Amino acid sequence: MKRMGFLGPLGTHSEAAALYLREKLNEESELVPYSDIYSVMQAVAVGKLDSCLVPIENSLEGSVNITLDTLARSEALVVNRELIWGVHNHLMAKCSADEVKKIYSHSQPIAQCRDWLEANYPQAERIEAASTAQAARMVAESKAGEGAAAICTKRAGELYGLHVIAEEIQDNDTNCTRFYELCRQPSHVLPKGEQGRALVICDIDGSRAGSLLEVLQEFADRGINMTRIESRPRRTELGRYIFFFDLEVEGDNHDRLQESIGAVRKRSLWLHDLGEFPIMYALK
Amino acid sequence: MKRMGFLGPLGTHSEAAALYLREKLNEESELVPYSDIYSVMQAVAVGKLDSCLVPIENSLEGSVNITLDTLARSEALVVNRELIWGVHNHLMAKCSADEVKKIYSHSQPIAQCRDWLEANYPQAERIEAASTAQAARMVAESKAGEGAAAICTKRAGELYGLHVIAEEIQDNDTNCTRFYELCRQPSHVLPKGEQGRALVICDIDGSRAGSLLEVLQEFADRGINMTRIESRPRRTELGRYIFFFDLEVEGDNHDRLQESIGAVRKRSLWLHDLGEFPIMYALK
Repeated sequence: MKRMGFLGPLGTHSEAAALYLREKLNEESELVPYSDIYSVMQAVAVGKLDSCLVPIENSLEGSVNITLDTLARSEALVVNRELIWGVHNHLMAKCSADEVKKIYSHSQPIAQCRDWLEANYPQAERIEAASTAQAARMVAESKAGEGAAAICTKRAGELYGLHVIAEEIQDNDTNCTRFYELCRQPSHVLPKGEQGRALVICDIDGSRAGSLLEVLQEFADRGINMTRIESRPRRTELGRYIFFFDLEVEGDNHDRLQESIGAVRKRSLWLHDLGEFPIMYALK
Repeated sequence: MKRMGFLGPLGTHSEAAALYLREKLNEESELVPYSDIYSVMQAVAVGKLDSCLVPIENSLEGSVNITLDTLARSEALVVNRELIWGVHNHLMAKCSADEVKKIYSHSQPIAQCRDWLEANYPQAERIEAASTAQAARMVAESKAGEGAAAICTKRAGELYGLHVIAEEIQDNDTNCTRFYELCRQPSHVLPKGEQGRALVICDIDGSRAGSLLEVLQEFADRGINMTRIESRPRRTELGRYIFFFDLEVEGDNHDRLQESIGAVRKRSLWLHDLGEFPIMYALK
């Protein structure tokens, strides 16, 4: 049976997305929880897992840096699928709403609910946990009178015996997270004419003014639409960056897309082509 | 006396940088610790503080998102100065090196020391704290036998009675953090001919292919060197971004710089010009 890793423990947004993906694809696969994103990606790279589902970007909080950095440093991984997942955050606790003094969650949901927390619990201490599910567990294990609450999924809260204090507390109703299903060899080829996405990571010589402009021109000249540009530190010195380009796959632009990637490769110190892949939506 | 805010408590990297800045400028000012970056920036915006010193980017971990997001949402703040600060991380504890089982720190230093931690303490649990100084305090208050250690500054460790287990554990010796001193009105004008930086934040209509390219072209056409481009979610929907451009101020390019900013403003839904400011270095 195939094995797909995700950021555990049970009850995380990643588990919910992985369960959804398995059901939709109608695949028999074992879901394996990992304690951090770096480890689950490494496990795929070295062949301990067949694939993993990892978050890459949230509509409110932006990029998941560890996913980007690990992708940039690995040559073994390609993107098999993208999943766009509607995120629903709830405040859950053992105590009542007016007893809440400490709020536990992962740093991303804390940031995603920043305005709601400022308006409703400006005084409450925010405590970061490794995941939303771990936050729920910490609240379940907290002493009575401590006033602990967690921002988490309904499943995580229920798993640990918490009740809902406030539903849907994210600052924005269009809160969603993009996940990548990563593997070593894609399980399918994107059918001709189907809409999808391509991801390219490269190290362009940014010390020369205008080098980024020239790269963008290679895409624009061939009518390739770039849906996102992201940069991450090269980790060698301040002011040097690695770039991530999300490119639109549509109609019959496959050849032009590949041509533009080839042209950008010539302008780069190195370039990773992570493939062309389909996009699935689960916004509810 | 003027009041400058920073991310407290005592012993954080931010406090060390603020102490340095005060000494270098030979200014009489009161340093005021705040518990989070959002609050200290708001305090300047509404006039409770004269200025604040906040981290904007680290050479290993990249942008400090909360600083970028708060800057984008505030029209009251300008950059008075940039400080480039060499970061030195140490592992400090009450226990001995081979007893360490839990490692406390802020998420940024944990990420900055990722490779070292993987090599030396792969099994140790990582626990996120609100700051490096809070991590040191949590270690000081931990029970004997718990095996708690903190990644923090020497000052924070000593403040809380910890000793050094390993020095300079950051993955890269060029680990540094860029800070902005923010205020409502700049205290000085950048002297003509002095090298410095300008910061512009804008919302360009990214739904049209090539709009980013056109903006970059406005800078390139006038010979303005862009040292950094960063994007953050607009927080309204997935796939819409706000852009941050760092621009080089040098020689006599002030007029050309202002002209290019004017041209980009015409291509933007909105644009914040955060000023031209000097850069100070404290790399040790």
